[in-house]
Amino acid sequence: MLVVMEKNATDSEIRRVIETIEAQGWEAKPIPGGERTAIGILRNETPVDPGLFLNLPGVKEAIPVSKPYKLVSREMHPEDTQIPFGNDGRVVIGDGHLHVIAGPCAIESESQALKTAERVKAAGATFFRGGAFKPRTSPYSFQGLGKQGLKILEKVREETGLFIVTEAIDVESLEMVEESADIIQIGTRNMQNYPLLRRAGQSKRPVLLKRGMWATVEEFLMAAEYIISEGNGSVILCERGIRTFTKHSRNTLDLNAIPFLKRESHLPICVDPSHAAGRRYQVAPLAKAAAVMGIDALLIEVHIAPEQALSDGPQSLTPDDFTALMGDLRSMGLPLPSL
Amino acid sequence: MLVVMEKNATDSEIRRVIETIEAQGWEAKPIPGGERTAIGILRNETPVDPGLFLNLPGVKEAIPVSKPYKLVSREMHPEDTQIPFGNDGRVVIGDGHLHVIAGPCAIESESQALKTAERVKAAGATFFRGGAFKPRTSPYSFQGLGKQGLKILEKVREETGLFIVTEAIDVESLEMVEESADIIQIGTRNMQNYPLLRRAGQSKRPVLLKRGMWATVEEFLMAAEYIISEGNGSVILCERGIRTFTKHSRNTLDLNAIPFLKRESHLPICVDPSHAAGRRYQVAPLAKAAAVMGIDALLIEVHIAPEQALSDGPQSLTPDDFTALMGDLRSMGLPLPSL
Amino acid sequence: MLVVMEKNATDSEIRRVIETIEAQGWEAKPIPGGERTAIGILRNETPVDPGLFLNLPGVKEAIPVSKPYKLVSREMHPEDTQIPFGNDGRVVIGDGHLHVIAGPCAIESESQALKTAERVKAAGATFFRGGAFKPRTSPYSFQGLGKQGLKILEKVREETGLFIVTEAIDVESLEMVEESADIIQIGTRNMQNYPLLRRAGQSKRPVLLKRGMWATVEEFLMAAEYIISEGNGSVILCERGIRTFTKHSRNTLDLNAIPFLKRESHLPICVDPSHAAGRRYQVAPLAKAAAVMGIDALLIEVHIAPEQALSDGPQSLTPDDFTALMGDLRSMGLPLPSL
Amino acid sequence: MLVVMEKNATDSEIRRVIETIEAQGWEAKPIPGGERTAIGILRNETPVDPGLFLNLPGVKEAIPVSKPYKLVSREMHPEDTQIPFGNDGRVVIGDGHLHVIAGPCAIESESQALKTAERVKAAGATFFRGGAFKPRTSPYSFQGLGKQGLKILEKVREETGLFIVTEAIDVESLEMVEESADIIQIGTRNMQNYPLLRRAGQSKRPVLLKRGMWATVEEFLMAAEYIISEGNGSVILCERGIRTFTKHSRNTLDLNAIPFLKRESHLPICVDPSHAAGRRYQVAPLAKAAAVMGIDALLIEVHIAPEQALSDGPQSLTPDDFTALMGDLRSMGLPLPSL
Repeated sequence: MLVVMEKNATDSEIRRVIETIEAQGWEAKPIPGGERTAIGILRNETPVDPGLFLNLPGVKEAIPVSKPYKLVSREMHPEDTQIPFGNDGRVVIGDGHLHVIAGPCAIESESQALKTAERVKAAGATFFRGGAFKPRTSPYSFQGLGKQGLKILEKVREETGLFIVTEAIDVESLEMVEESADIIQIGTRNMQNYPLLRRAGQSKRPVLLKRGMWATVEEFLMAAEYIISEGNGSVILCERGIRTFTKHSRNTLDLNAIPFLKRESHLPICVDPSHAAGRRYQVAPLAKAAAVMGIDALLIEVHIAPEQALSDGPQSLTPDDFTALMGDLRSMGLPLPSL
Repeated sequence: MLVVMEKNATDSEIRRVIETIEAQGWEAKPIPGGERTAIGILRNETPVDPGLFLNLPGVKEAIPVSKPYKLVSREMHPEDTQIPFGNDGRVVIGDGHLHVIAGPCAIESESQALKTAERVKAAGATFFRGGAFKPRTSPYSFQGLGKQGLKILEKVREETGLFIVTEAIDVESLEMVEESADIIQIGTRNMQNYPLLRRAGQSKRPVLLKRGMWATVEEFLMAAEYIISEGNGSVILCERGIRTFTKHSRNTLDLNAIPFLKRESHLPICVDPSHAAGRRYQVAPLAKAAAVMGIDALLIEVHIAPEQALSDGPQSLTPDDFTALMGDLRSMGLPLPSL
Repeated sequence: MLVVMEKNATDSEIRRVIETIEAQGWEAKPIPGGERTAIGILRNETPVDPGLFLNLPGVKEAIPVSKPYKLVSREMHPEDTQIPFGNDGRVVIGDGHLHVIAGPCAIESESQALKTAERVKAAGATFFRGGAFKPRTSPYSFQGLGKQGLKILEKVREETGLFIVTEAIDVESLEMVEESADIIQIGTRNMQNYPLLRRAGQSKRPVLLKRGMWATVEEFLMAAEYIISEGNGSVILCERGIRTFTKHSRNTLDLNAIPFLKRESHLPICVDPSHAAGRRYQVAPLAKAAAVMGIDALLIEVHIAPEQALSDGPQSLTPDDFTALMGDLRSMGLPLPSL
Repeated sequence: MLVVMEKNATDSEIRRVIETIEAQGWEAKPIPGGERTAIGILRNETPVDPGLFLNLPGVKEAIPVSKPYKLVSREMHPEDTQIPFGNDGRVVIGDGHLHVIAGPCAIESESQALKTAERVKAAGATFFRGGAFKPRTSPYSFQGLGKQGLKILEKVREETGLFIVTEAIDVESLEMVEESADIIQIGTRNMQNYPLLRRAGQSKRPVLLKRGMWATVEEFLMAAEYIISEGNGSVILCERGIRTFTKHSRNTLDLNAIPFLKRESHLPICVDPSHAAGRRYQVAPLAKAAAVMGIDALLIEVHIAPEQALSDGPQSLTPDDFTALMGDLRSMGLPLPSL
């Protein structure tokens, strides 16, 4: 239920609606807008009777919200969410630019990270990604450099000015990541790791939430709802491929989801063609396809020597491939930002 | 196995290779190229020993072909297949242009067809589609106008100059369709209807083969192989969405398949976002995404009054929507042809 | 809509309901029952107003049928369908016995067929299966012996008394199959080949309809509806595995579908674990699992020399494996019939 | 790589092999067997050269292990793993009995838990399940009673003698669960929550690991490998349905996986038809089907008043349904144990 106030509703009228909601044991979530205030009702297990509110002074309407998600929904927050970065907030995800987040799957060494970062920055990326904590299918695979990887990422930011995206795999690593990174990534396997989502919701850092490879778009939005319901509204939704019966790619990039997410939610949208493809030759064509759909960010894996990568080498672009892709995106007229 | 001849191989040397192949009970498929001839070996159930050929005069090499498909493969036919239409052959699918095939799911009346055709032609379509024979999930649904629908399609061509694409659902309807249409469509449900594929392979008309919604790309190429193995090399591969666990769209458009098909096969590629989406608002964004991947054709459902359509109304664009989409494609610099 | 008559409704009252239905351009399908007659309404594109019938003499109620399928539904036909075989009709699929249909994927020779048939009969099978017309993914694979295969199957019946099941792949082969076989099989790839389904609906032979590996259970029932709507009510529904993301089996046997089909439909149910598994070691465990769910038939591939089979060898049981499986089923107390 | 020692190999010969392995930076995992010792090599990123070991005294052979999983594999541990419970260890999962784990989705109150426990015990269950920590798709849904729920579960054990299974959703809850429960459940959404798996591997309690609804069987075994590689070999593999395109059930129970898992792994196997079905009427038929495949445990949701359940009511059996199912399993001759 969304209680929409009159344009000229007074503060005390708004307060009374909030008290009425709380008297039922529910939570009131005021959503200030340009013209008028609306108040969302959360934590109601059963449908809400609009009659509770319609006779209160200053109330214009009470709109039942049929979707299971609320805070992520355009019904509650019609304008696009914008997420500013840096001291001056000049770099914004969600302002109509197409940001490119690039870097290796895993941080392997300072030299690998810095060399890659210089190349992707020169090509036009604004964010650098690289995993310090890696969720790997095998317990015997490289699990990331951990804390040391975060130090390297900080150095990358210092030396290049690129903003940093890196993954947290549990509450412990999240507490380290939020100290070092500009965006906390929650990976596909953790999309329904609810304790981790709740903790990310208490962070001051924006969160890049990857869709579970098995998740419906409703479940994806509900995972974002977990984060926002704890107070952190800076969530970027990242489509990265779903598991299907096909074998010519690691996963199938679900671009049907993009118009759905843009219509249903106000959150910025990122697409990761690298993990969906799992094969280098598919990455650039898919990146271009996603880019023309009006998304806010692309996430592209780039490695200076893919054949030596400790993880995900076969899908990483070389810096040269990446530079060519960025040139193509630019010549297609896409709104790439500059740092 | 592909037996590649020397550049200056004589006709009698080529003949001798063919006889050697046929003496084993296999079929020889000479593939004349610009520079040299290669000869494919078909219908061998077991691997072929290259030694059979390497000592014959005029033979350069004998290349084992590891893929189950042969005639559809770039290994056997490196250049893109081009399919000309019309008396002068000026309109070509596969020459680098992006053709747009548009029209209603089903032909419902002459007036509906002509009105739609005029609008899609004005907007820049070069082909008109519309079903006269409809494969419908329910025996109680509208099954198409049949022969009468074909007459209407002929009239559309006469009056507008648009080329005609329409579906055949069995050998009987195919024999009517090849009389009336410029392209025979084989629908998703018939992708593994082998008697129908064989008969299409004996037709003089190009075939638009839709991928089965359950089919791997290898199975898709093998279906095309059925058609070509009967002598008809004019096959257009059409990706139209696969069945996955998601519910926000009717099917999931598998754009990962496009770079795969372009790399593996020389056949022209079409994408049908309308059937993949099943919802109007997803069609234009997906059409643009597919268009920038370097495909040869888009297939878009357009209906003058979608809310009255006898089938697939919810996914059909209005003529105004379609005109806007064509404008967007043009302003993106995509190589739309003109009639 | 189902118009249910009073117990003592007269013939002229029933006739009047039928005329009322036909006057609307719909089709009336009287369904005589033990106690009372019900009349189904088919070919209505829009919902039917119950008021049309409720005031007619002899009408008890008019029940809206919400499912897209009608004739296959228990709502229209509450009792289980029973399908008798042979001159005396003593062998019945649907009477509570568990019939086992066994034999090779393809008929390769008379000797192979007869040897296999003797072994499966000795072990307790009542039906023999084997393909004369094979739908193969590759145009270069063995396509079956055709007419000659049917002759061999007739000989098998003559010599062993086993009833015969074999596949039709188009109208032409169906017309040969219905002359030779006791059950016409429609394969998974043809589940939505509507012209073939319609023709099967005009046959006097029972039809074993395999579920499309991509088909929902609703689509599966609609395919059966096509057959029954043409007059042939003897349809056996065969679950044979669906396509999923897994790789440890060719397909995933969907046993969740069995209680659904038993509840929704009155048609007998068969399960084919061989094609679902694609690996011999999974066949017997899955056969036992399906058997205890109260199904009417199992379809098991058996080959005298699987390693030499021209198709599907890896999933075929040897006659010894099959005999052991039948022993297990018997010792589990399952109601295996005898010829 | 598995280094297999001679039957009469001495301790010092074994030690030398271990030192050779460790000198390479790998980990040696001695696996004592009845007759001879084998030594597994872990944490090698690249293939191991057998020549390193074949000339050492006491070495019989060096077997390359091709599978990504090792400790879970029958190659390394041919005999079935048995997991004893209770002080006397008389109750064993993996000894050939079919244990039934029953109870509500969530613990809602002491009275609900005790009443259900009495009924499922009377019907023959040996383990009681119920969630104190619930991973819920919506942040606004009931999240479980937490610590208080564990107290109720302890009381259930005290009063009924049933062993207790309950889920941990993060390291924090795992530390509470291992104090209270006999088996720690890791749920489907956490199958690739590697920090949680590692922590479970350091626990002394057996772990019931549910397959991710998106996971291949290889990924499932690798998740178990994470647990065992930390030292906890008491893992029970639980198939609970995978996500497919179908809609007649919540998920599709993948019974093809059972023979695969039994062949590949020595770990006990459990099947959960309740979550796969999501609909009550499918649960008992699927439970019977799974039971005849030779599994070690069934997990069945039972609620005293499903229509009032705070979660998963529609799939819960009533105590009467459950008693009937247990009677059926007993009359099918399945080896149900007694407490």
